[in-house]
Amino acid sequence: MATIKDIAARAGVTATTVSRVINNRGYISEETRKKVTQAMQEMNYQPNELARSLAKAHSNTIGVIVPHISHPFFSKMISALESAAAKRGYKILLCNSKDQPEKETEYLDMFISNRVTGVVMASRDVQIEKFHDLKIPIVNFEREENTEAITIQCDNEQGGALAASHLADCGCRHLLHFGGIVGRDMPADRRADGFLRVCRERGIEGEVLLSDRLSYGSMHYESYIEKGLLEHPETDGIFASSDLIAAQVLQRLYAMGKRVPEDIKVIGFDDTVIAGITTPSITTIHQPIEEMSELSIAYIDRRRKGEMVPNVTTMPVSLVVRGSA
Amino acid sequence: MATIKDIAARAGVTATTVSRVINNRGYISEETRKKVTQAMQEMNYQPNELARSLAKAHSNTIGVIVPHISHPFFSKMISALESAAAKRGYKILLCNSKDQPEKETEYLDMFISNRVTGVVMASRDVQIEKFHDLKIPIVNFEREENTEAITIQCDNEQGGALAASHLADCGCRHLLHFGGIVGRDMPADRRADGFLRVCRERGIEGEVLLSDRLSYGSMHYESYIEKGLLEHPETDGIFASSDLIAAQVLQRLYAMGKRVPEDIKVIGFDDTVIAGITTPSITTIHQPIEEMSELSIAYIDRRRKGEMVPNVTTMPVSLVVRGSA
Repeated sequence: MATIKDIAARAGVTATTVSRVINNRGYISEETRKKVTQAMQEMNYQPNELARSLAKAHSNTIGVIVPHISHPFFSKMISALESAAAKRGYKILLCNSKDQPEKETEYLDMFISNRVTGVVMASRDVQIEKFHDLKIPIVNFEREENTEAITIQCDNEQGGALAASHLADCGCRHLLHFGGIVGRDMPADRRADGFLRVCRERGIEGEVLLSDRLSYGSMHYESYIEKGLLEHPETDGIFASSDLIAAQVLQRLYAMGKRVPEDIKVIGFDDTVIAGITTPSITTIHQPIEEMSELSIAYIDRRRKGEMVPNVTTMPVSLVVRGSA
Repeated sequence: MATIKDIAARAGVTATTVSRVINNRGYISEETRKKVTQAMQEMNYQPNELARSLAKAHSNTIGVIVPHISHPFFSKMISALESAAAKRGYKILLCNSKDQPEKETEYLDMFISNRVTGVVMASRDVQIEKFHDLKIPIVNFEREENTEAITIQCDNEQGGALAASHLADCGCRHLLHFGGIVGRDMPADRRADGFLRVCRERGIEGEVLLSDRLSYGSMHYESYIEKGLLEHPETDGIFASSDLIAAQVLQRLYAMGKRVPEDIKVIGFDDTVIAGITTPSITTIHQPIEEMSELSIAYIDRRRKGEMVPNVTTMPVSLVVRGSA
């Protein structure tokens, strides 16, 4: 691979001059600049980003940890983060924690070793303090607030309220919410709060069920759904905490001979690719994943430049009416 | 952040000794090793991976370029690549090309600048020659063979044949294949070859339709499907080139009042999360994405060590029978 010295020799200038052209520093005549860039093209020169990163003490890389890459919510989020990062000249180092604390710790250490500019964490928040000490900004994406991290979330309470209101408006009187995970405290739990508040206000029945961790990990909610529907046969409106759960609710209702939306109405959450491709398509709460991802990268970028960024940012959600309610 | 010098001072040894411990090189007494590692723990030392990479001339990073991160096929592939890479101590640098050649070129240059160990390319193959010259192994993942790359693909011909055979076995006589993209030559086109071969052998009708690039980019195939079904009203068996297309075929058939699988049978391709969550669930051709991803990383690793790897690897596919056929 051609080095700066090789370029200098070919262009007939000093290595310092070549370095100035590459880093756009100091005065360089137009003629010299042309000679150097031509030599770089001819010799197929690629500046060594590792060496440049070392000089800068960070690497223009943003570490991303998610619990399940192939879960539609996280796929959409990763895609949006990559777009936002590329726009600002950052690269994405992607890690899948599978929700295991030891993997998260390992990845976070790897991020520090690689001098990442910042971290977006959609898995649990371990080791936040270490990042705080090292002044590496860390974004908590739809995870519990933490004073040492930048929290970006959607208005989950509003989402639960919107879902319950729409079901009530559709004439439902016995609502069921397939909600968060037993024993985990997550912003998504606020969906149940908004749901229950509206049920009380409208004087209708509202029941909240929690799933086990196994279902979340495997993305299979069949037995959770089956049990919930068996124990609540009067249900005429369902609010599921993700489009993935909603799709599996549709499958179960079909198997039971129930028609959607005629007999039972179903609302999902997230507005991922899944909501648009089921039969019927899923009425859902749109989570502004693109905007939240854009903010995550923008805040890391601003923090790096020493600018102030909000500790907690809560973005609005909206109801998207499709076929299921 | 603590440096090697700081560790040396605390442990009461020279910087060279600390470096030896970190890199596990040369003779070090057990006592000295203990002193150094204890000092590292106490001072919260993280080796600078950038500096280590620079010394090694590559960065233990594998660049991955896909055309659509949030497409279920690519989500599953990225997840599998990340697992396989983590097992071998590699990190994933993830890029979304959106199928734009200029973005692909830009990302590949970025990979070279970052001294990646290898590249997995599921977008188009531009600039392959440059990587070949630099001896950076590049894997073509379900892309056309290229003598300068390592090609890993599934047996698409077999997949098309399996789909047509199963539809014929189910009693279908008028088959329709929603296939590849107009004007693109991709391994997936072989699915149509296998499909047509079996139609001929079994003496049944088989028609192949191609979609435009816009549908592929947006993941919306509605008008392509609607037109195909209108022009072929006799169709009783459909083979779609992805589960995503198959799900949208189910939606259209439902809107037309056709029952699946009673009136029309539908088979998808890929076996992604989508196939399991539609109503009815999708009978599909399982593509061994995990195994193909595992091989991609293994071959890059072996090539880096100077070992020989196959130019072209074609993995078998299998039929997964669910509700739609």
